[in-house]
Amino acid sequence: MESSTVDDPSIRHRSGTQIERVMQAIRSQIASRSLTPGAKLPSIRSTAEMMQVSKSTVVEAYDRLMAEGIIRSRPGSGFYSAAPLSPLSLAELAPRLDRSIDPFWVSRQSLEAGSDMLKPGCGWLPSHWMPEEEIRRSLRSLARLRDRTGLTDYGSPLGLTALRQYLSRRAAEQGFEAAPDQILLTDSGTQAIDLVCRLLLRPGDTVLVDDPCYFNFLALLRAHQVEVIGAPYTATGPDISLFEKALSDHRPRLYITNSGIHNPTGAALSAVTAHKLLKLAEAHDLLIVEDDIFADFEIDPAPRLAALDGLNRVVRVGSFSKTLSAAFRCGYIAGNRSWIDKLTDCRIATGFSSNRLSEELVLSVLSSGAYHKHKDALRARLAKARAATIPRLRSLGIEPWIEPKAGMLLWCRLPHGIDAAEVARHALADGAVLAPGNVFSPSQTAAGFLRFNVAQCADDRLFPILEKALRQTG
Amino acid sequence: MESSTVDDPSIRHRSGTQIERVMQAIRSQIASRSLTPGAKLPSIRSTAEMMQVSKSTVVEAYDRLMAEGIIRSRPGSGFYSAAPLSPLSLAELAPRLDRSIDPFWVSRQSLEAGSDMLKPGCGWLPSHWMPEEEIRRSLRSLARLRDRTGLTDYGSPLGLTALRQYLSRRAAEQGFEAAPDQILLTDSGTQAIDLVCRLLLRPGDTVLVDDPCYFNFLALLRAHQVEVIGAPYTATGPDISLFEKALSDHRPRLYITNSGIHNPTGAALSAVTAHKLLKLAEAHDLLIVEDDIFADFEIDPAPRLAALDGLNRVVRVGSFSKTLSAAFRCGYIAGNRSWIDKLTDCRIATGFSSNRLSEELVLSVLSSGAYHKHKDALRARLAKARAATIPRLRSLGIEPWIEPKAGMLLWCRLPHGIDAAEVARHALADGAVLAPGNVFSPSQTAAGFLRFNVAQCADDRLFPILEKALRQTG
Repeated sequence: MESSTVDDPSIRHRSGTQIERVMQAIRSQIASRSLTPGAKLPSIRSTAEMMQVSKSTVVEAYDRLMAEGIIRSRPGSGFYSAAPLSPLSLAELAPRLDRSIDPFWVSRQSLEAGSDMLKPGCGWLPSHWMPEEEIRRSLRSLARLRDRTGLTDYGSPLGLTALRQYLSRRAAEQGFEAAPDQILLTDSGTQAIDLVCRLLLRPGDTVLVDDPCYFNFLALLRAHQVEVIGAPYTATGPDISLFEKALSDHRPRLYITNSGIHNPTGAALSAVTAHKLLKLAEAHDLLIVEDDIFADFEIDPAPRLAALDGLNRVVRVGSFSKTLSAAFRCGYIAGNRSWIDKLTDCRIATGFSSNRLSEELVLSVLSSGAYHKHKDALRARLAKARAATIPRLRSLGIEPWIEPKAGMLLWCRLPHGIDAAEVARHALADGAVLAPGNVFSPSQTAAGFLRFNVAQCADDRLFPILEKALRQTG
Repeated sequence: MESSTVDDPSIRHRSGTQIERVMQAIRSQIASRSLTPGAKLPSIRSTAEMMQVSKSTVVEAYDRLMAEGIIRSRPGSGFYSAAPLSPLSLAELAPRLDRSIDPFWVSRQSLEAGSDMLKPGCGWLPSHWMPEEEIRRSLRSLARLRDRTGLTDYGSPLGLTALRQYLSRRAAEQGFEAAPDQILLTDSGTQAIDLVCRLLLRPGDTVLVDDPCYFNFLALLRAHQVEVIGAPYTATGPDISLFEKALSDHRPRLYITNSGIHNPTGAALSAVTAHKLLKLAEAHDLLIVEDDIFADFEIDPAPRLAALDGLNRVVRVGSFSKTLSAAFRCGYIAGNRSWIDKLTDCRIATGFSSNRLSEELVLSVLSSGAYHKHKDALRARLAKARAATIPRLRSLGIEPWIEPKAGMLLWCRLPHGIDAAEVARHALADGAVLAPGNVFSPSQTAAGFLRFNVAQCADDRLFPILEKALRQTG
């Protein structure tokens, strides 16, 4: 570490504004959690290059941030965001009665909401849209299962063979090869991503996500104590030039994204973007997790990174919570064999075995003819819901960023100057859970957006609540 | 860091043996995984004090270990076990065809074993011992569930209220208070422990376990990249004076143990030991995870640390895999409210929601009169199996360390000089999965032990296989 220059008045005078600019940049990175608590700051040299200021300006800015208690130095090792990596650093995750609007806000409010609450901000379908009869039929058939061990014993390390074979066939239909032994079944799609993060990440690593992205990616990555950076998402995938810049500037190890239908925007990757993205990943040795959770809603399938890459540097994860049931959880990871082996050991160590009965149930519903019809019906129903919801939102000045081709999500811009978090607080008081934009945005630049779920917008009580909340905020 | 003294011949000469002794101590800690890859070594001063040698002797020993590539230094930060904390350090978890006998050996062999394999080393009951009819009945009743959301929707953040109420009542019967909102349902008992570790531990922390202990604790802690130390387990709980010494010497943050019936020894904590242990925990600010997985096998309940402590510094975890079913997984954490809140957010971030349908099923079986009878029958059946197995093992020279009062586990000493890992390799070739002692031992001092499961020893083919394996090894 260079010695402090805080007492050299010439420097103070010469570059006061630039010092303040560097300090402000670090402060906003900490506020937006691009720099998570305890994360290492870029070196003095690289900050100087990045912000085009002298190294002594950066030294001075870092010194002042240390004096403010915002960053700390470790001798010989650099500078760190000051919140400690202590055992209780998860205290920041503590729920509060006045819970701030953070990535947990939507999850907690949605999961805790009583049946009388409206949930246009939640990310799943109403219960009566789900294949209830098929689930009841599968439960009855499971009660008659011949092989007793399916009701009583631990599953095999990779999970139910017949379900992995089914997923392997489906992968082939989608244009890529994933043998059954390249598929690991997990307790959920979220657990699948978590396991991959456990294998590939260490605290202090950098991970690239879309901006905006699924809010729980941000919560998950926070739990892994990594730095998160975002690349702006466009209607055809990430903005490729900013994606490339993010790779060069920050050298992230991993990129986590949705395939098929992007959460929260409803956009889909174009073939051109997919190809460019993968070339960049190869050039920068970037690994990719492709979360395929909305696959069954797609009408014209978008290109899959996993298909282009052949499960080399891309890991595909998914689950059945969105179209089949969220009450019995089952996810999967498809990846190269060497990773699947390691992930299997990691799963044994941290969860022992997956849920064999849930896997039997999922397989029973998936492989029925009824599920196929159910998927078709869902797509048509969602198209209708989208067509009904968009004009009602527009009449309130809420404008969809794009009109998605499929899925339940609608990413909407509020009238100019209205803060979505404020709207969400007002709506919550009136019985509606909304999803304010900044919970999806690593850079906190989506304060003027709300994510709507068109399947949860049919209730006529919703729009007066929205109108009132906009009025109270505006 | 002090400068190297490697070139000072007087030191070399004076304390060559002592230097070698320090080097050997570090090497064995690395070999036994007391020092996990990347873990920080004790400081030069503390090693010197611990081993009663001069600091210069330790400096020299560390220098030589660096030259051998066994440890590394980070300037200003100390010395580290050399295997890198790099993203691929989990490579050590990679399965191999010639998989070494490590904590994964028993899990993998047992979980992968076909129905024709004998599994006296596995930690669960045979399928036909489980309450199959009650599970089938519960599945049929679930197929008729009135509340559709129980079949299709995510559960609430803490998990099924009725099951938490049931567990709260059961805790009260066992003498301690755990309100339903102090209970978090999880996907498994292992996940429960993993979540607690995520909340309380950081890489490089030290964790105390029993020696021997459940092998998957060692695998789990390895995944958390913490240092593991062991305190020898006696017939009435940990050896209290060595337990105290471990606390003073290593200042572990957490102690993980089994309550009720200890795995692998089948021993149980005495009231005196429980009381002393808790006093030491208070004095050393040690947190405790009490894994209560075998509770339903107990005949005379042993004291519970959670009951004595009132869920202050003790977290109780458990599951239903051992007596109800391992095919639908469900575990729980009972702890103080502030931890439960944080654990809930951590679970949302890393797994989103628990398995509501499994929770409904578990509750349905648990609350039936049939389950009560099933538990009674299991206890009687296990007592018979124990009485039948012990003499057959003794006739081969395999001697139980104690005769447990309850449960399926039997910790046995082999005839002098016979290596359990060798016996396990021979037996595996003949179709029997054994559990060799060192997979349970953090200090690797149980090479002469095997853990047997009396419920899996009824097959007459087993004993000839054992006899042959002993002969081949001895």
